[in-house]
Amino acid sequence: MSDSDALLARFDEVRAHTERLAAPLSPEDQTVQSMPDVSPTKWHRAHVTWFFETFLLAEADPGFTPFQDQYWFLFNSYYEGVGPRYQRAMRGAITRPGAHDVGLYRRHVDDRVTDLLARVDEGTLDKVRPVLELGFHHEQQHQELLLMDIKHVLSLNPLRPVYAGSPADPGVPDRLRWVSFEGGLVEIGHEGPGAGFSYDNELPRHASYVGPYRLADRLVTNGEWLAFLADGGYHRHELWLSDGWSRVQAEGWEAPLYWTRADDGSWLEHTLHGTHPVDPAAPVCHVSHYEADAYATWAGKRLPTEAEWEHAATVSGAVEPAVNALHPRAAGPATGGLRQMLGDCWEWTGSAYLPYPGFRPAEGAIGEYNGKFMSGQMVLRGGCALTPPGHTRATYRNFYPPGARWPVTGVRLADDAR
Amino acid sequence: MSDSDALLARFDEVRAHTERLAAPLSPEDQTVQSMPDVSPTKWHRAHVTWFFETFLLAEADPGFTPFQDQYWFLFNSYYEGVGPRYQRAMRGAITRPGAHDVGLYRRHVDDRVTDLLARVDEGTLDKVRPVLELGFHHEQQHQELLLMDIKHVLSLNPLRPVYAGSPADPGVPDRLRWVSFEGGLVEIGHEGPGAGFSYDNELPRHASYVGPYRLADRLVTNGEWLAFLADGGYHRHELWLSDGWSRVQAEGWEAPLYWTRADDGSWLEHTLHGTHPVDPAAPVCHVSHYEADAYATWAGKRLPTEAEWEHAATVSGAVEPAVNALHPRAAGPATGGLRQMLGDCWEWTGSAYLPYPGFRPAEGAIGEYNGKFMSGQMVLRGGCALTPPGHTRATYRNFYPPGARWPVTGVRLADDAR
Amino acid sequence: MSDSDALLARFDEVRAHTERLAAPLSPEDQTVQSMPDVSPTKWHRAHVTWFFETFLLAEADPGFTPFQDQYWFLFNSYYEGVGPRYQRAMRGAITRPGAHDVGLYRRHVDDRVTDLLARVDEGTLDKVRPVLELGFHHEQQHQELLLMDIKHVLSLNPLRPVYAGSPADPGVPDRLRWVSFEGGLVEIGHEGPGAGFSYDNELPRHASYVGPYRLADRLVTNGEWLAFLADGGYHRHELWLSDGWSRVQAEGWEAPLYWTRADDGSWLEHTLHGTHPVDPAAPVCHVSHYEADAYATWAGKRLPTEAEWEHAATVSGAVEPAVNALHPRAAGPATGGLRQMLGDCWEWTGSAYLPYPGFRPAEGAIGEYNGKFMSGQMVLRGGCALTPPGHTRATYRNFYPPGARWPVTGVRLADDAR
Amino acid sequence: MSDSDALLARFDEVRAHTERLAAPLSPEDQTVQSMPDVSPTKWHRAHVTWFFETFLLAEADPGFTPFQDQYWFLFNSYYEGVGPRYQRAMRGAITRPGAHDVGLYRRHVDDRVTDLLARVDEGTLDKVRPVLELGFHHEQQHQELLLMDIKHVLSLNPLRPVYAGSPADPGVPDRLRWVSFEGGLVEIGHEGPGAGFSYDNELPRHASYVGPYRLADRLVTNGEWLAFLADGGYHRHELWLSDGWSRVQAEGWEAPLYWTRADDGSWLEHTLHGTHPVDPAAPVCHVSHYEADAYATWAGKRLPTEAEWEHAATVSGAVEPAVNALHPRAAGPATGGLRQMLGDCWEWTGSAYLPYPGFRPAEGAIGEYNGKFMSGQMVLRGGCALTPPGHTRATYRNFYPPGARWPVTGVRLADDAR
Repeated sequence: MSDSDALLARFDEVRAHTERLAAPLSPEDQTVQSMPDVSPTKWHRAHVTWFFETFLLAEADPGFTPFQDQYWFLFNSYYEGVGPRYQRAMRGAITRPGAHDVGLYRRHVDDRVTDLLARVDEGTLDKVRPVLELGFHHEQQHQELLLMDIKHVLSLNPLRPVYAGSPADPGVPDRLRWVSFEGGLVEIGHEGPGAGFSYDNELPRHASYVGPYRLADRLVTNGEWLAFLADGGYHRHELWLSDGWSRVQAEGWEAPLYWTRADDGSWLEHTLHGTHPVDPAAPVCHVSHYEADAYATWAGKRLPTEAEWEHAATVSGAVEPAVNALHPRAAGPATGGLRQMLGDCWEWTGSAYLPYPGFRPAEGAIGEYNGKFMSGQMVLRGGCALTPPGHTRATYRNFYPPGARWPVTGVRLADDAR
Repeated sequence: MSDSDALLARFDEVRAHTERLAAPLSPEDQTVQSMPDVSPTKWHRAHVTWFFETFLLAEADPGFTPFQDQYWFLFNSYYEGVGPRYQRAMRGAITRPGAHDVGLYRRHVDDRVTDLLARVDEGTLDKVRPVLELGFHHEQQHQELLLMDIKHVLSLNPLRPVYAGSPADPGVPDRLRWVSFEGGLVEIGHEGPGAGFSYDNELPRHASYVGPYRLADRLVTNGEWLAFLADGGYHRHELWLSDGWSRVQAEGWEAPLYWTRADDGSWLEHTLHGTHPVDPAAPVCHVSHYEADAYATWAGKRLPTEAEWEHAATVSGAVEPAVNALHPRAAGPATGGLRQMLGDCWEWTGSAYLPYPGFRPAEGAIGEYNGKFMSGQMVLRGGCALTPPGHTRATYRNFYPPGARWPVTGVRLADDAR
Repeated sequence: MSDSDALLARFDEVRAHTERLAAPLSPEDQTVQSMPDVSPTKWHRAHVTWFFETFLLAEADPGFTPFQDQYWFLFNSYYEGVGPRYQRAMRGAITRPGAHDVGLYRRHVDDRVTDLLARVDEGTLDKVRPVLELGFHHEQQHQELLLMDIKHVLSLNPLRPVYAGSPADPGVPDRLRWVSFEGGLVEIGHEGPGAGFSYDNELPRHASYVGPYRLADRLVTNGEWLAFLADGGYHRHELWLSDGWSRVQAEGWEAPLYWTRADDGSWLEHTLHGTHPVDPAAPVCHVSHYEADAYATWAGKRLPTEAEWEHAATVSGAVEPAVNALHPRAAGPATGGLRQMLGDCWEWTGSAYLPYPGFRPAEGAIGEYNGKFMSGQMVLRGGCALTPPGHTRATYRNFYPPGARWPVTGVRLADDAR
Repeated sequence: MSDSDALLARFDEVRAHTERLAAPLSPEDQTVQSMPDVSPTKWHRAHVTWFFETFLLAEADPGFTPFQDQYWFLFNSYYEGVGPRYQRAMRGAITRPGAHDVGLYRRHVDDRVTDLLARVDEGTLDKVRPVLELGFHHEQQHQELLLMDIKHVLSLNPLRPVYAGSPADPGVPDRLRWVSFEGGLVEIGHEGPGAGFSYDNELPRHASYVGPYRLADRLVTNGEWLAFLADGGYHRHELWLSDGWSRVQAEGWEAPLYWTRADDGSWLEHTLHGTHPVDPAAPVCHVSHYEADAYATWAGKRLPTEAEWEHAATVSGAVEPAVNALHPRAAGPATGGLRQMLGDCWEWTGSAYLPYPGFRPAEGAIGEYNGKFMSGQMVLRGGCALTPPGHTRATYRNFYPPGARWPVTGVRLADDAR
């Protein structure tokens, strides 16, 4: 298979996956923005298309004309360099183009990209390959967001709607074990283009000093979180960061987002499979950094730094779960090594999202992808159950503000080793 | 035709009209709430159905069971007496039931009402007739709201979508004339059940003293409003009520809602027919009470009181426009009497919305329809182009907060007569 | 005594009274603005001085120069016509001029006014007399505000500070009686210049039709309000206007402003005399229009209209209390007529604050005194315990937004008579 | 001098310095809170006193009774462990105790501490010494805050008040030079109790890897900032972090806080000496982290990390300015080494404020001093002109949210070395 054929096959696969994710959703489902952080499904479908149209077709397609002028304005997310954009918090006010018309837009751009790749010469191919690859990864990120966002949308509906499927059988709780690491002057960060795709924020690879430490071999479970609740975790100021305590009080947090009480006092959890009893063996998810930190304080431990996490993941190996699921599952049997490192919950670290030493943003509007968000956010590692297969890696730096709860976020404990 | 047949025919007609209004709207269009005051189309369709289900079927249908339990919660608007309700500002977060499922709900309730009316005895008929009639008028009010709301939704879309149809040809401006009234101790208010349907807020008929006055024979036109703009109307504090001036500055008002400037500096207006040049002969609409008052001050005149308006409408007759339109049209030729009294624009009066002397709210939850809103709002009279035929009358008291601009509101000048 | 001597004597008396009211307050007390509606004591002292400087001296004093240029900016309240002004909500950020320096400003303007009046000719005197008189009444209004505002400031201090004096002995509760009025086509409004001073909003005198009605002979008492509380008054939506119910819930109202619970569950009230047990015989005060309306609904009655109130006050006479107090006192013995009409609590009416028929605002910046506030407010009548002697009259129209609770506001019930 | 005598002498000195700083301020000046971040002068004076009363006297004075019960509530800042506290944003609503009464409170506590130290035994002295020392440093921090806060208060007054003194003569601009450091695996953090006082957040000393780097030998000047302005610095999104750009637009930033334009277009700066022309040679101050970062991006450089800063300060020495000033001054002549490291402006670093590896908060309520604020803030180093003499050190970690502008904050550039 030629290089351009391979790219096209990858393109088709990524693009089709987005449409598969949207398929269970009605036009109404695809339209709503339930809070400013959330985007409508049809906006995601259109925005990832806009990305290819703007950064690939407009640059490399000689006969390019935009599919629809105003789409450039409507489906730009935050690229100031590309021009003005429709304000984020109002994405849910846009009823047209509807879900069907967004499909037409997608097909149009797919056709143009297919045409382009069919007749591209080597030189152009070298030029467009990085943009295409970035577009694949960009679309995969939005696949994850699409699911997290629709989960929030559906959570507001008292009819308790189901996105798809049904929940896994309850898991078997097992005790948490610790895995130790010597640390020292370690290298973290992506090794660069030769080692496969990465975002600019994973670069450059660099030295970092890490003392001896140990990590929990699995994520904190719902059962453990229930013990935190039972011990007054959400009512004891001394466990919380000051900003976290303010949020607890201002927003009345009593449990993870999506937990509600059944009439008998037990806890239910809204999931993409509908609303079901909380499984004590499954990892807790939809907790903010504030909650993760308070839990760690309560447990007499702390969160890992991103250097610790990445070093451990690299040293001890970290593999994606075999089963692709819509909700994180209980850890498999203990192995002596680390479990649930990739593809279960995004794991809050104790590291602020800042540039690596020597970081340089990519050139042009694409340079707005990461660097300008390096303020006020915390790093998360490992991917989650909603992350599309193949989109996780040990060097991946995800980031959210410390109060975010709608992403699929969980907690792995860390500790100093003596 | 028997009494129950007549009621059923009226029921069918009202219900069918709602569905005709929704027909041009996609599921996505029907889902969005563009601001807290606006409700989604499918919510309107469901809420008016809930009204018949709650106040008619649940009371009078022996075999009644709710169509869907949670609908009672989702589609209650503000009736505290009926139980808790979904918060108003979040109506746009509800994707399911979708537009199609709301249709099924409507059909189910329509069938049950039809069944009920088919086999109803005289005694029950007397009991349900007032509820049915209130339900008709309630649904008509929501027909008007449905159009005003979708107009706002579509206005936020830079694609400039069209609801239906195309604009009327520009009218012929003519000069404003005055019609004088002697006033005195006049009677206003509805005459009660014998005189046809009314809301409780139009009762009781009562005496009110009105000095000699005169009214403009037609509404203020866009052309006249352009003169107000040209004379700095939106920039001269001395023309404005203090609250109005604060709003002008806080929200940057420069013209009526829905007016935007074309590239050549001329004014365009968003309508249900799409975006078109402002017609100088048509009445200005989508202005707040603050703007109406400032304009009147600028013109050296004032707004009519509701007693003046109603007395004049009664004395001189007021007829609905022959043509049903989606946008107010230029006044017809001068007649010596009052023009454009009904069915063009809701006309701001200088009267606060307060209970008439001797007012008593209706019994039960239906008593929440009007009385509890008698605070902080101004009375408007006359109906507008979006009001369904047969829903206007001289005694009708509409009301909005003085800053509201999304209803179809216009201005008729008044003056003291000497 | 010559005319100018009489004016000067009145000037001296009004000016001295302000300083007497400020005397018990420390420089710190005089500086604070506890919420946007409240102004600092020293601002009141300076603003009323600015009024004489701007509208009297700057107009009529040939050698006029401003005392301090920036004072024009700092101490303008809301007169847009006079130029820009320091934003109202930030009055409490201004530490200088301090209380002492404001005293110097006052003395300077007092001296200039004294000089002016000493050598004024007849023609000028005729010109300045209306401004002086308006200035007297303006300063008296601010005397009342000064006390209401400092009461709010001191209420936020957990040390429970005292402004002055000590509370009256508890009164003797007596039952409420009704006084009936025939109504008809009555005249209300001030009779104009010949009949003494009035604000422009009391003009012109005009006819108004009033049906037969009756008024409570005294204000609602704290004891009656306690019965309202005990009957769930603050928790029953059906008693409340919709806007009122929203405020109750948003701000957690459970009782009148300034009521707090003692450890034994009894109610205490913050007053200018400090914090003391609520006196069941004294009139309830510091209730909003929403609360007044809910109470009246609960009692099966209503609030009077302003025409009813004024007509009754005129017909039956209304006198100020003999004792000048800092807190409203229990009504004296029943008389068969109306009690507590003037000088106890500002009485909420059911009338919105709107222009009288034929109202014309005064010319120039002074015309901003009243007219531009005729939106979104309710009329109150009768004056309160903090109103300076001589400042009340039957035609006086006070006004506040329906949610205001920091003025000394109370409730008189009304009812239709049959 | 005995150990307790030495402590007492230090106590007297610190306490007297606070009162010297407050001396030029009127009671009115001392009362106002101009925004939630600012505290009134008299609150600072009382709060530092409360600290000694709560953490020293209440623990160690056998006959302890509180000076005034409610003061515990009023003057607690954020110590949840000590009990409820008066809400921060309302500190400016408290008029009593006034400035004079706070003086009495101070004297009372001073007397009790003096008594305690006069008769303290060795064992107790060992126990109270750390609390006293923390109290000294705590009061010094508030001395700096007192000046920064009153600077903000006075800035809102259009009369342009002066706190004290007059500005230095304009400095002589000189070019910026770079000082290089090899970096490597360096140690940072305080060496612990044996090495003098530190806060818990400076502990423990630990290894950190730092690549080769260079630092600007002086702070960025006003002159350089004017070049940034002239080059559109506040209008070019590509220079800014996303959160920073939002703030620029939401708050209309056009220049550092306290800069205003004179009528001739030149820039003036509000200082504690009054309002004066900006000195191009003096360091820019009152810029947020967002502005510091944008400037560094514009200059093609970056901010130093806190490890880089501390390593450089330790390696190359860093001394406080000889002259104690109320405003940062132009750098002295170039030395080949680093200038302006201590006591000019707090220097924004690129490091988020997070716990050092192995950090443990102090025991008890005093443990709330630092640890709970380790979220959402950036580290600043070096002290500023308002920092009291002796309160700076190379390991000191100050912290503010990235949008803060009212502290005396400046910018030192850093760069990678090759």
